[in-house]
Amino acid sequence: MRILVLKFGGTSVGSLERIHNASKRVLEKIREGYKVVVVSSAMAGETDRLINLARQIDAMPSERELDMLVSTGEQQAVALFAITLQKLGVPAVSLCGWQVPIVSDEVHTKARIKKIGVQRLKNLLAEGYTPVVAGFQGVTESWEITTLGRGGSDLSAVALAYALGGDCEIYTDVEGVFTTDPRIVPNARKIPVISYEEMLEMASLGAKVMQARSIEFAMKYGVRIHVRSSFSDKEGTWIVPEEEVMEKSVVRAITLERNESRITIVRVPDRPGIAYQVFKALGDAHIVVDMIVQNVSHQGYTDLSFTVNKSDAPKAEQIVRKVAQSIGAQEVVRDDRIAKVSVVGIGMRSSYGTAGKVFEVLYRLGINIMAISTSEIKISCLIEDKYGELAVRELHSAFIEEGEEVKVLNEP
Amino acid sequence: MRILVLKFGGTSVGSLERIHNASKRVLEKIREGYKVVVVSSAMAGETDRLINLARQIDAMPSERELDMLVSTGEQQAVALFAITLQKLGVPAVSLCGWQVPIVSDEVHTKARIKKIGVQRLKNLLAEGYTPVVAGFQGVTESWEITTLGRGGSDLSAVALAYALGGDCEIYTDVEGVFTTDPRIVPNARKIPVISYEEMLEMASLGAKVMQARSIEFAMKYGVRIHVRSSFSDKEGTWIVPEEEVMEKSVVRAITLERNESRITIVRVPDRPGIAYQVFKALGDAHIVVDMIVQNVSHQGYTDLSFTVNKSDAPKAEQIVRKVAQSIGAQEVVRDDRIAKVSVVGIGMRSSYGTAGKVFEVLYRLGINIMAISTSEIKISCLIEDKYGELAVRELHSAFIEEGEEVKVLNEP
Repeated sequence: MRILVLKFGGTSVGSLERIHNASKRVLEKIREGYKVVVVSSAMAGETDRLINLARQIDAMPSERELDMLVSTGEQQAVALFAITLQKLGVPAVSLCGWQVPIVSDEVHTKARIKKIGVQRLKNLLAEGYTPVVAGFQGVTESWEITTLGRGGSDLSAVALAYALGGDCEIYTDVEGVFTTDPRIVPNARKIPVISYEEMLEMASLGAKVMQARSIEFAMKYGVRIHVRSSFSDKEGTWIVPEEEVMEKSVVRAITLERNESRITIVRVPDRPGIAYQVFKALGDAHIVVDMIVQNVSHQGYTDLSFTVNKSDAPKAEQIVRKVAQSIGAQEVVRDDRIAKVSVVGIGMRSSYGTAGKVFEVLYRLGINIMAISTSEIKISCLIEDKYGELAVRELHSAFIEEGEEVKVLNEP
Repeated sequence: MRILVLKFGGTSVGSLERIHNASKRVLEKIREGYKVVVVSSAMAGETDRLINLARQIDAMPSERELDMLVSTGEQQAVALFAITLQKLGVPAVSLCGWQVPIVSDEVHTKARIKKIGVQRLKNLLAEGYTPVVAGFQGVTESWEITTLGRGGSDLSAVALAYALGGDCEIYTDVEGVFTTDPRIVPNARKIPVISYEEMLEMASLGAKVMQARSIEFAMKYGVRIHVRSSFSDKEGTWIVPEEEVMEKSVVRAITLERNESRITIVRVPDRPGIAYQVFKALGDAHIVVDMIVQNVSHQGYTDLSFTVNKSDAPKAEQIVRKVAQSIGAQEVVRDDRIAKVSVVGIGMRSSYGTAGKVFEVLYRLGINIMAISTSEIKISCLIEDKYGELAVRELHSAFIEEGEEVKVLNEP
């Protein structure tokens, strides 16, 4: 029994006509001999519509109630999907997260999957049914509805593929993973095969194709993912273990992340435990902190900066203001006009000089670097937002279009 | 701990502003010292919108999937309701049917409640929370979502009031139960107190205020119901046991039901078992049959007529055509242009001559009666649809406005 999990994003189920097209893809895969499990997001726009309703009542609505509210979007989509499949002659059954069950922890709006019950799905598959599972949602052990955070439907799909022992196809509105955003650089190329590590960096760095947590999950459990367009029959991008990637570019892709804010605590007394207090408080509020920069101390004081997702920024600022007061810092400044530009590639591990070349490109453009963050396979620079696209274009040109980089081919 | 179940219908939660007004009513009741459980319908129009979506895909969508789909309407409403209550300072928790749980049988789109788990609700109330329960929905023992049929939110509310030992207030868009539809008869009067029996007849006969099954439930378990407007502070109508009704009118109200179709099987061989075959097949399809008329047999043949809800009529016709063929009947005719006009009153039990007077009124108007159905407390006549409103006006005038009826006062 070859199992395939097909995940359809919001635009792929954005209208009844699109659900019909998605259903025909499901039918094709069944005809190819697969046992298919469908995972669907909410119809495009529905989640935002619901969140806006809640925010009209209260700018900071209860996250528990938000999960009750927005999880209905996926539930509607899977019911309509199942009805469409049935109309095409495919016996289908829609399931909410709690009906699978996909059991999560208790952290509303960004819950983590703890376990997946597969018996019901296996029974349905064995009886010839195609389950259509609501993505993005889970249920706690005390029967509360949770959601897995933005892009959580990808995670649902990857986790189900792992639990059932199948591959995972992610249908989306782009043709795969590109060397950079084609709206910024028309020369951007589709990447046929990419490693989990690279994709993970790209997801963290602003490539919107897939959510980082689902890549992390896929990497941990070895789930092979095929990201492709629901509007085309072309092959998309395979995301696979590093050892299956034949061509290891030094720089595989350039990313631009504009969805972060920088918060700076000015004139912090430079003594042990300060950073701990700040980041403990943020962690307690489940806020993910990205780049952290602490300047050299002057006369016992220093500045402490970090970036967070823009949606978390007001909450983070509020929390940090309290801590800043208690530790006697001078002030807290928030800057929403920043961008993070990054170069990513597993070839960087066995190459050198990449960082220098990145800084050189930015220097020649007269762009000031506010912060730098590196890993084995990526270099990120925080810059002013207005220079973001320019930097991406020039880095793409220097590293990818000119094809200067050393290509490292796997030994057979 | 005085418990009150407050149920808000679709128009009462039809916009965020209306949910806000409904929430203020909840707050008032809490301030009066009640422990409140809220039951909410979907926002007005949402259920129909969802059903229409499903019907665009398939004229006869799977009822199991329909329940998955439409139950999201109430889930959205209760989440928004809970957020609004919280904004007003009321600790509130929304709950889906399966989270209560409200356990039902397996008959999708018209399930019956089998049991209600009250522990979670009692715990929430004891901890000072106001539970906001999604009306209209249940869950089967195998964790399938069901819905309780149109108007099922009333049933949810009454059943919860019984399970928790409280009274039930039904907030709707009318000021209570009227002697007849005020849109047809401007002289219609609000009825301050009415018995379950009368209300039950009225609900079955087309008065849209409350669903028959919820009155039946309330009568069986003695739940006192107060039906009132969510847009006014006036007292509405109390629905209570007969012994609490002080003034027993012979005719309490006149109703008009235009939502039925008549199906006639023409020239049926008049032999035993025919009616059984017809109505067994309809029963198996969960179609409720209302008035049944069989003419006197002529030369071994007879005509068999019955009425069903208009929404069930196409399905009923389809079923009956099959049976008609197998039993050798001549043809099946469906008529959607019928109306049922009824007079209702518990005083009828201890009075006489009411039927004669009804027939006289219709006769004087030149209206032909196609079928008659009576109970201890009501007389219904099936007539041509076009005479419906005229008949109601004249019956209201004769029985209610002229106040001729004998009023029977309860002995103290």
